[in-house]
Amino acid sequence: MSEQAGLSGARESYDITLPVRNYTPRHFLLEVKGKTATVTLNRPERKNPLTFSSYAELRDLFRALQFDDEVKTIVITGAGGNFCSGGDVFEIIQPLLSRDMPGLLQFTTMTGELVKAMRACPQPIIAAIDGICVGAGAIIAMASDMRIGTANAKVAFLFNKVGLAGCDMGACAILPRIIGQGRASELLYTGRVMKGEEAERWGFFNRLVETEAVLGEATKLAEELSAGPTFGNAMTKRMMHMEWDMSIDQAIEAEALAQAVCMKTEDYRRAFEAFANKETPVFEGN
Amino acid sequence: MSEQAGLSGARESYDITLPVRNYTPRHFLLEVKGKTATVTLNRPERKNPLTFSSYAELRDLFRALQFDDEVKTIVITGAGGNFCSGGDVFEIIQPLLSRDMPGLLQFTTMTGELVKAMRACPQPIIAAIDGICVGAGAIIAMASDMRIGTANAKVAFLFNKVGLAGCDMGACAILPRIIGQGRASELLYTGRVMKGEEAERWGFFNRLVETEAVLGEATKLAEELSAGPTFGNAMTKRMMHMEWDMSIDQAIEAEALAQAVCMKTEDYRRAFEAFANKETPVFEGN
Amino acid sequence: MSEQAGLSGARESYDITLPVRNYTPRHFLLEVKGKTATVTLNRPERKNPLTFSSYAELRDLFRALQFDDEVKTIVITGAGGNFCSGGDVFEIIQPLLSRDMPGLLQFTTMTGELVKAMRACPQPIIAAIDGICVGAGAIIAMASDMRIGTANAKVAFLFNKVGLAGCDMGACAILPRIIGQGRASELLYTGRVMKGEEAERWGFFNRLVETEAVLGEATKLAEELSAGPTFGNAMTKRMMHMEWDMSIDQAIEAEALAQAVCMKTEDYRRAFEAFANKETPVFEGN
Repeated sequence: MSEQAGLSGARESYDITLPVRNYTPRHFLLEVKGKTATVTLNRPERKNPLTFSSYAELRDLFRALQFDDEVKTIVITGAGGNFCSGGDVFEIIQPLLSRDMPGLLQFTTMTGELVKAMRACPQPIIAAIDGICVGAGAIIAMASDMRIGTANAKVAFLFNKVGLAGCDMGACAILPRIIGQGRASELLYTGRVMKGEEAERWGFFNRLVETEAVLGEATKLAEELSAGPTFGNAMTKRMMHMEWDMSIDQAIEAEALAQAVCMKTEDYRRAFEAFANKETPVFEGN
Repeated sequence: MSEQAGLSGARESYDITLPVRNYTPRHFLLEVKGKTATVTLNRPERKNPLTFSSYAELRDLFRALQFDDEVKTIVITGAGGNFCSGGDVFEIIQPLLSRDMPGLLQFTTMTGELVKAMRACPQPIIAAIDGICVGAGAIIAMASDMRIGTANAKVAFLFNKVGLAGCDMGACAILPRIIGQGRASELLYTGRVMKGEEAERWGFFNRLVETEAVLGEATKLAEELSAGPTFGNAMTKRMMHMEWDMSIDQAIEAEALAQAVCMKTEDYRRAFEAFANKETPVFEGN
Repeated sequence: MSEQAGLSGARESYDITLPVRNYTPRHFLLEVKGKTATVTLNRPERKNPLTFSSYAELRDLFRALQFDDEVKTIVITGAGGNFCSGGDVFEIIQPLLSRDMPGLLQFTTMTGELVKAMRACPQPIIAAIDGICVGAGAIIAMASDMRIGTANAKVAFLFNKVGLAGCDMGACAILPRIIGQGRASELLYTGRVMKGEEAERWGFFNRLVETEAVLGEATKLAEELSAGPTFGNAMTKRMMHMEWDMSIDQAIEAEALAQAVCMKTEDYRRAFEAFANKETPVFEGN
C-alpha cells in the first residue's frame, strides 16, 4: 500500500493487489467468503462516517474488484445498527472550508470516482441498510444495484442541510430513475429523511426485513447471484450502465450483441443440459 | 408467403400483404375486428412458447402493421390461461447451442427486431396477461404500450435462469423506465417471478382484473383508443419513442412540431365542433 | 408593458422589469412575500382556463424570474377550488382552427416556451393542486418541481379528448420520468382522469393534504426551501435539468464541478459553523 501523506486526503491511493481477499483495509472491514465480498463500514461509535481516507480506499477497493475474478457479488453494510452517516463534519466538511478551488474539485472528483467504480465493477452490489443512511451514505446505497432495508432505516440526501446542492456524486441523475422525478426532487431539495416503509413503497428498497435479518438477507441474495451465471450477471450490469442514455433502438442492438456473447458461454449449455436432465444447473461463470 | 427452409429460422421471412386482416398466420392467431387487431399466441398445451418461426412471423406482422391503415390498436394475448412461456427449450435454446457466432447474432438481432417493430408501429399495443408470462413473453409484455393483467399472472425475465444475461431485447433499457431502476435490477439479476399484485403496484400492469375479464378489458380499452383520434395517438407513440433519450428542451421543441401537425387534422375540428354542440365527437383518425 | 394586438396572441410579449414584485400581471395574480412568489390562476368562474395572453404572460413571468434575485421559490395554484382547466375552448381551441401552419407552430412553440421557462428558472416550483387540473393545467403541474395535491384533485392530460396527441409541451418526455412509462402511456393515450390518491401513489403528487390546507402546505414547503441554501437549491434544479439525458459518468463529472462551486459559498461555511456551535444555520443564498 502506498499512501500519500498530508491533509489533502483526496490524493491518497491504495495499492490493492489481487485477489482482494488478501487485502486488509485500513478504514473498513472486508471479508471474502465464497464468491461474495462483504464491505462493512466500521466506526459504529459515530455511525460509520466517511473520511478522505476511507473514501479513497473504498474507491480503490471497487476499482480493484473490477479485476478480481474470485468475487462475484458484493454486499455493503455498516456496523452497529447504522449504515453510514456520510462525510464526517470535522474530518471532511471543516477541512474543505479552507481548500482552494482545485482542492475542492479534487475532493468532489474523488467522491464521484467512488460511484463510477461501483457502477463499473462487474459484480452486482447489494446494500444492507439499517438505521442512519445519510449524505454520502445515501449515495453509496443509491449507487448499489439493490438495497435491502429495514423499517428503522433513515435515508437522507441531506446535502442541502449542510449548505450544498443535491447534485452530489450523481444523485440528480440516478435517484430520479430509482424513485421517480417528483419524489427525488423532494428528497434532494429538502434533505428530508425517507423512512424505511416509504423507501420500499417508492422502490428505493427492494424489500423490508427485520433489523436482525438485514445483513443475512442481503448475503443470501448475494450468494444466490454468486451461484448464478455470473458472466451473464456482469453483462446485465454493464448493459444497464451503457444503455442509460441510449435510444431504444440502440439499446436493442447493443443487447443483441451482448446476449449473443453470453450464448457462447458454458453456463448457457449447462442450463440447457440441466433442464433436459431435470436437474438444477450448476453455473460456473464462464 | 415465402419462407426459407432450414434450421436457421432467423432467416425466415413472411410476406404479409396488406391489409393484414386477409393474412392467416402460421404460428399464432390473428383477428381483425373493427379497427383492432388481436394476436393470440396459440400453443396452449405448452403455455404458448415461441419458436424461431413464430418470432420471425411476429416480427413481420408488426412490420406489416406499420403500414396497415385499417388497424388502429393491437391486443396481444395468449390462449388457454397463459400469456407466453418464452423461447422454447428444445426448439430454440437447444439449437442455439450449436450455432456459431454469426448464427447467434442473427438470432438475437431477429428477436430485437420484433421489439423494434412493436415500438415502431403506429398502433398502441395492449397486452392482456394471465398466467405464465416469462422470458420472451415478459419481453413482449414489456414492449407493449399498456398491460392489463391478473393476480394469477407470473411475469419473469428469467434469462439468468437459463445461464444468460438480463439484457435481452432491450430489457435493461425499457424495464427500468416502467418500474424503476432498483426493482428492474432485482428482476433482471435474479430472474424471479413478479406476481400480478406486485406488477400492478410497481406500474408494470396498468390494472388488475379477473382472469375471465382480462381479454375483454384489453379489447375494450383498445376499442376505446380505436374510436379516438388515432392519428394523434400514433403521434403520441412516435414521440414517446423519439424523446426517450432527448433533453427536455429538445423534447419540448419536437412536441411543438408534432402537436402543430395534429392541429391540422380534422379530428381536432371534430372535437371542437362536438364540444360547441354539446355532442360527443366522432373521430376518424385524420 | 408592451403587448401586440391582434388575434395571434402568441406574438404578445410582456416587459416585466425586475423585481417582479412590482409587476401587476394582467391575467393572473402574483404575490411576492418574503422570498416566495405565489402565482394564482384567477378566473375561478371558469376553473382558471388559459388564453393566448395568459400563456404569454406566464412565459414572460417565468423568464423574468430567472433573473430575480429576490425570489427563491415559486408556488403556483388556482383560485376557487380548482387548479386550471387548460386552454380555453373558445379562446384557444376555436381560433387555432383557422390558423395556418406557421400560426399553429407559433402557438405550440409559445406553450413549450412556458415549460422551458419553468425548467430554466433557478427557483424550485411547487404546485398546489385541488380540483380540476387538466390539459395545459396538468402540464403546468407536471413542469413544476414538486406537487402537493388533494384527494379531490382530478388531473387529466386530456389532449386526445380534443382530437390531439399526448405529446404536448414535453409530456411524452417528462411524465414517464415522474410516474413510469406504462402509467404515463395510459394517461396520454386515453386522456383519463388521474385522481388524487392515484396521483400520490404513482409519485405525481408528493403528498395529499386536505383542500383547505393545500396552499398553506405548498407555501410552507416553499418558505422552508427559501430559508435553505438557495444557491445550492438552484444548482440542484439546474443539474437535474442538465443531466436528463447524460450518461451516468457524465452526470457524475458534471456534479463534481457543480458541488465544488457550492463548496465555495458562504452557506456551506454557515452550515458548518452552526453545527460546530450546536445552532441552526441561517442561510443567505450565497
